[in-house]
Amino acid sequence: MTTRIQVGVLGFGGLGQAAARVLAPKQEMVLTAAADAQGYAYNPGGLDPDRAIATSNQQGSLGYLEPEGTLSHQSIPDLIGKATGVEGYFLALPNLPNTFMANVAKEFIKSGWRGVLVDALKRTSAVEQMRQLSSSLAKAGITYMTGCGATPGLLTAAAAIAAQSYAEIHSVKITFGVGIANWEAYRATIREDIAHMPGYDVEKARGMSDAEVEDLLDKTNGIISLENMEHADDLMLEMAGVCSRDRVTVGGVVDTRNPQKPLSTNVKVTGRTFEGKISTHTFTLGDETSMAANVCGPAFGYLKAGISWHRRRIYGLFTAAEIMPMFVK
Amino acid sequence: MTTRIQVGVLGFGGLGQAAARVLAPKQEMVLTAAADAQGYAYNPGGLDPDRAIATSNQQGSLGYLEPEGTLSHQSIPDLIGKATGVEGYFLALPNLPNTFMANVAKEFIKSGWRGVLVDALKRTSAVEQMRQLSSSLAKAGITYMTGCGATPGLLTAAAAIAAQSYAEIHSVKITFGVGIANWEAYRATIREDIAHMPGYDVEKARGMSDAEVEDLLDKTNGIISLENMEHADDLMLEMAGVCSRDRVTVGGVVDTRNPQKPLSTNVKVTGRTFEGKISTHTFTLGDETSMAANVCGPAFGYLKAGISWHRRRIYGLFTAAEIMPMFVK
Repeated sequence: MTTRIQVGVLGFGGLGQAAARVLAPKQEMVLTAAADAQGYAYNPGGLDPDRAIATSNQQGSLGYLEPEGTLSHQSIPDLIGKATGVEGYFLALPNLPNTFMANVAKEFIKSGWRGVLVDALKRTSAVEQMRQLSSSLAKAGITYMTGCGATPGLLTAAAAIAAQSYAEIHSVKITFGVGIANWEAYRATIREDIAHMPGYDVEKARGMSDAEVEDLLDKTNGIISLENMEHADDLMLEMAGVCSRDRVTVGGVVDTRNPQKPLSTNVKVTGRTFEGKISTHTFTLGDETSMAANVCGPAFGYLKAGISWHRRRIYGLFTAAEIMPMFVK
Repeated sequence: MTTRIQVGVLGFGGLGQAAARVLAPKQEMVLTAAADAQGYAYNPGGLDPDRAIATSNQQGSLGYLEPEGTLSHQSIPDLIGKATGVEGYFLALPNLPNTFMANVAKEFIKSGWRGVLVDALKRTSAVEQMRQLSSSLAKAGITYMTGCGATPGLLTAAAAIAAQSYAEIHSVKITFGVGIANWEAYRATIREDIAHMPGYDVEKARGMSDAEVEDLLDKTNGIISLENMEHADDLMLEMAGVCSRDRVTVGGVVDTRNPQKPLSTNVKVTGRTFEGKISTHTFTLGDETSMAANVCGPAFGYLKAGISWHRRRIYGLFTAAEIMPMFVK
């Protein structure tokens, strides 16, 4: 008698597990499918998030989840084929290498599955790859929402709203503060951040052992400072017609040893009004909101919006700056 | 050889004239139609905003505009019938009496015209009237965007975005500051504000002479302070599923004798994250942005979005909290 939307989560690290917890109290959505690199689990009646997280953390894969789990080295295509009731997936996968998410999208296109996909991709180059898949996604009957996490995502959408007061946008400046008590809970995310540091790239960061990450963080007192990051907010705001991508900058400070944020995450949109006044709108996130809350909340809000578009037979690629996310109850 | 969208503006007081100025530099839209209570003007090649404003201010009506103007006591239905190339109208009309905008919407439904209508209605009761017209609008092939000014509008949309971080919304608190050098440039808007003051209502405010408004403002040093205003942000956020309307409050301070804002307009969204943390996101408008910029910018941003929906044959009533506005170049 449930009318809840069946939702899947691909990737079950820190972000995927947070996504499972975000979904747990929802009346409109239920987590029925999840996969990691070694296996997957599907239960159309719903997966128990606590058991799924415990199994993943203690045994190393969702494939060990009893009775729904299956071990597999091609867990994503296997799950897509099996989980026929799933209307939308949140791709909570670390995009390592930088082509990984686009390859997952191609798996979905190949499979014949129709529904909504949401990613929280960060890099401009990764969203560019998605953009090249736009017509293939449309033909496949997939509504794909890219860049729908915190930044890009929540802050990009806020910037697109803020831009409305202005005749011309001079700059969009995103500055984020992230505090985490223990970097080991977000191994993949922290490696993605390290990849933005001078002298590092995605491959190098990915290849670092945990000990090497520890060593690096010891040298910086646990702080990762980032400037002029390659972040797809620039491309997404350009695609939405707000401003050219060179007017968008993203930087931030990650404290890997303190759950308190080193600064309040914000986006500042500066422009010129029709009367010729220069001004700045500011959107600031509350310090108590975690990265997980600011990524997973929007991801499912865009997933819900994507489903309403999919049901209207509107397919293809969309970004967080183009569609209003819907609140998931 | 123009592909610009033909746009009309109904009402040519302070807000309608500002709308004409906002449109003037746009490449994607052109003002071709406008009406006031005594007449209208239509030129499919575009109206000259300077001449239109000067004629309106000096002669009392757009109907005197040469050669496009026509005097009429039923200017709105006359213009709708004549301006066949117009794809969307911004209804920059003071909603006095409180049923006026709904009656204008009914004129459009009756006329057989199909396109996009955008209003910047403020009161909950006024948006409720629009809501009752939803299926009639849909049947008529009209995409109607209600509450698409500053507040409701820009700030409501920002609140809907901000809500995404939270599992539950505890409060949405909108506080606006407005500063205008001279209230006489916004006679209708100021009367609408006065109508929110204790001891006043829409009819009483509407019936005040300019001298009576002056007297009232002399007593308050030109300040209008407003609390718990009837503002449709509450209904719109409830319709969008963000929270029940009683959790949304709107208040503000209007200084009618100083273009500087008495406080920075902002919306604070407080909620609980999935981890149980209570926090507040804040969206603050730059003080240099005028009411006109913050109303007219969003209005045309929603008009552009509405046109993309209309072209997909999506009709009916939508609010600023449901659709992402598009940037108008």
